[in-house]
Amino acid sequence: MGVGPCKGSVTLAHDGPTTSSNQDAGANKIDDKTVPQNPILPTSNSVPIRLGQTEMQQHDLQERAKVIKKHFPKALALDDFISRTEVALAGYGFTGENSIAMSNLCRDESCIMLEDKIESIFGSCFSTHGLGGVLTCGVVGIKAGLSHSPIVGGKEQYVFFSFPHIAIDSAGEVGKISRPNRPGASSACGALSACLGIFKAEGLDAQCKGPGVHDPLDPELSILRQRLARRLRHEKKDMKELDLVGITQAAERTITSDLEQLIEKAVDTSKANYAVFTGVQIHNWAADVNKDDGPPSLEFVSVGKSYVCINGERTYLDVSMVPSLAPRQLRLLATASSGAAEEQPSSNSVVQDIPRSALMRRVGGVTGRSAEPVAVSKPADGWQQFVKTDFQDAHPNAPKMDDKDA
Amino acid sequence: MGVGPCKGSVTLAHDGPTTSSNQDAGANKIDDKTVPQNPILPTSNSVPIRLGQTEMQQHDLQERAKVIKKHFPKALALDDFISRTEVALAGYGFTGENSIAMSNLCRDESCIMLEDKIESIFGSCFSTHGLGGVLTCGVVGIKAGLSHSPIVGGKEQYVFFSFPHIAIDSAGEVGKISRPNRPGASSACGALSACLGIFKAEGLDAQCKGPGVHDPLDPELSILRQRLARRLRHEKKDMKELDLVGITQAAERTITSDLEQLIEKAVDTSKANYAVFTGVQIHNWAADVNKDDGPPSLEFVSVGKSYVCINGERTYLDVSMVPSLAPRQLRLLATASSGAAEEQPSSNSVVQDIPRSALMRRVGGVTGRSAEPVAVSKPADGWQQFVKTDFQDAHPNAPKMDDKDA
Repeated sequence: MGVGPCKGSVTLAHDGPTTSSNQDAGANKIDDKTVPQNPILPTSNSVPIRLGQTEMQQHDLQERAKVIKKHFPKALALDDFISRTEVALAGYGFTGENSIAMSNLCRDESCIMLEDKIESIFGSCFSTHGLGGVLTCGVVGIKAGLSHSPIVGGKEQYVFFSFPHIAIDSAGEVGKISRPNRPGASSACGALSACLGIFKAEGLDAQCKGPGVHDPLDPELSILRQRLARRLRHEKKDMKELDLVGITQAAERTITSDLEQLIEKAVDTSKANYAVFTGVQIHNWAADVNKDDGPPSLEFVSVGKSYVCINGERTYLDVSMVPSLAPRQLRLLATASSGAAEEQPSSNSVVQDIPRSALMRRVGGVTGRSAEPVAVSKPADGWQQFVKTDFQDAHPNAPKMDDKDA
Repeated sequence: MGVGPCKGSVTLAHDGPTTSSNQDAGANKIDDKTVPQNPILPTSNSVPIRLGQTEMQQHDLQERAKVIKKHFPKALALDDFISRTEVALAGYGFTGENSIAMSNLCRDESCIMLEDKIESIFGSCFSTHGLGGVLTCGVVGIKAGLSHSPIVGGKEQYVFFSFPHIAIDSAGEVGKISRPNRPGASSACGALSACLGIFKAEGLDAQCKGPGVHDPLDPELSILRQRLARRLRHEKKDMKELDLVGITQAAERTITSDLEQLIEKAVDTSKANYAVFTGVQIHNWAADVNKDDGPPSLEFVSVGKSYVCINGERTYLDVSMVPSLAPRQLRLLATASSGAAEEQPSSNSVVQDIPRSALMRRVGGVTGRSAEPVAVSKPADGWQQFVKTDFQDAHPNAPKMDDKDA
């Protein structure tokens, strides 16, 4: 499964049992390096399951929040963040009825948790997702999305959400995420983790090629790598010191300034008001989501640059100053936004957990008991014979991807 | 609102009242050219609202399906398509529990209708969406998604869905779509429409630059343009004859072969089974979704290449040979997959309409009466004062996008 002829290309972290020959040394090094060894308390209560947090600590939502805040001091629980943001936006005149949301997250399907919350307020987003959150849709792409905005009261209104992501599991392991019906741990963000490995191995200068150049087989990763490297070089960061948390924060800064450049080129403030919310999405899921009685899965958001721009005037907002809703209100809103009327998060704090059945269904499409083998049918004598057909490609030699003509 | 220094760049169609100075001549020409003038029947029943279809015809779901099939003979209603596909996939051993879905649609938020159906079966997709459906995530991106697959019974399983999109509204106008709380018509697919205009104006050769080159301010559009141009040149298509339907079908072929190249490079068939479903997503929405008593909004899918690959052996499928579910079954499944338990589609045929309230909420985030002005709050003496803050960019001169260092 070679990646092809492109120089400097990599495989993102494919952890888990199927890829014992993991080539992405960077990702593993990162995890080993950055995992805090028992970051909060000595393990006095019970046997530690994995690194860091004890079983009891993993069931304590406030302890979990402390671990996250150690890495991201401005972190809020997802439902807490999104409800305060909705209050602040409504106060400045942005609602689902009169605004279109643009969401810029990573392509990783785990990011659906934040996307669902945004869409429960604003309806379907114009999505600019890319690997690691890199923006490749360009000025024309942003303009296309903006041109779909509601027009209520004479002005278009846009709300931009931009969040690269990171996983820090219930045991406190940085970069690790458990996937529905998949044994072992997986990585997030794989793209940023891959960049980190390359930067440490090859340095930054080697990544800074000319503008407008990409690897035809890996457009997004090569563009992400170049943009991050330029930024880190400008910031004079020491690659020896950089860890996954650090590169994720650097990605947030880089992508935010890219987004603001696109906005500058695409938005006419005489015709439109807009708002920008950036930060980092943090998956704090159970270290093994496939275990029935494991610790709860949580989501956090590290709050970044937050402002509204009304009639061309920018106002920076501190959402931590918006009061939290009551736990009961948060629970009702969380339930409505997860499209799961029958399942209510059970927490009595502003940190709401994702019910395991909801996570397994929404992320994994799992509706029954997990890890129960479903036999692959033999396409033999049944109805399957009737749906078989032939297919002739009309242009079998047409050029593929960015190849030259055959 | 210039697009910047990039040569040959364009603005996607910004129709509607705010952009009377529409620069995208291509898009409008296309629509004028390809809209069938009353394609089915003479307008005998009532006064025609716009081009083509009478009011009564627009309320007749079977008539609507006929108009779509005139342009796309293999079109099926969305719920009909997705339910047959789920049956076929289950018959070959692919379910939400044991498979990950990759969805490759356009970034347009209207595409949520198909995305929701896929996710109701498979859970959150690894999304590779790009403008016009162009694939830019690359080999590494695809591999990252695949590495999140469930492993049930020893093998990974992937289901790829790849669909560029087009709008054909209830009046039969090709390329036109009405957006929640936005007066006038908008375009879909704007990116393909823009490419068509450029190809007609500049020809194909001018678009075929070297592999691995993109416009830094418009990575995706420039990559899409180049790939489509190469394909159309290889197919020896006459640009004079090409219309929006034709370029959309060409995009389906191009993107399908790009996808298959990525699969070839990323999938190890000794460790994974997979399935591929391609085609075109067709928005057949009410010509004015903001009118309370307008015709119903429908979605169709033109079925393209469909196959499963099990243990390395490929079997092409003809989903039109899978029996349709009964209208009552379709209605129940459609309701469940739209996350709208209280709203049931009302059709008694296999063509199910999207209840207007569901479309307005899911696509537009609209929960009350539409087009009711929501005043923008003056950030004056209220609580808003408390959430204002200052923000200093730590690296104001950091390079943006693919710019060289400042």
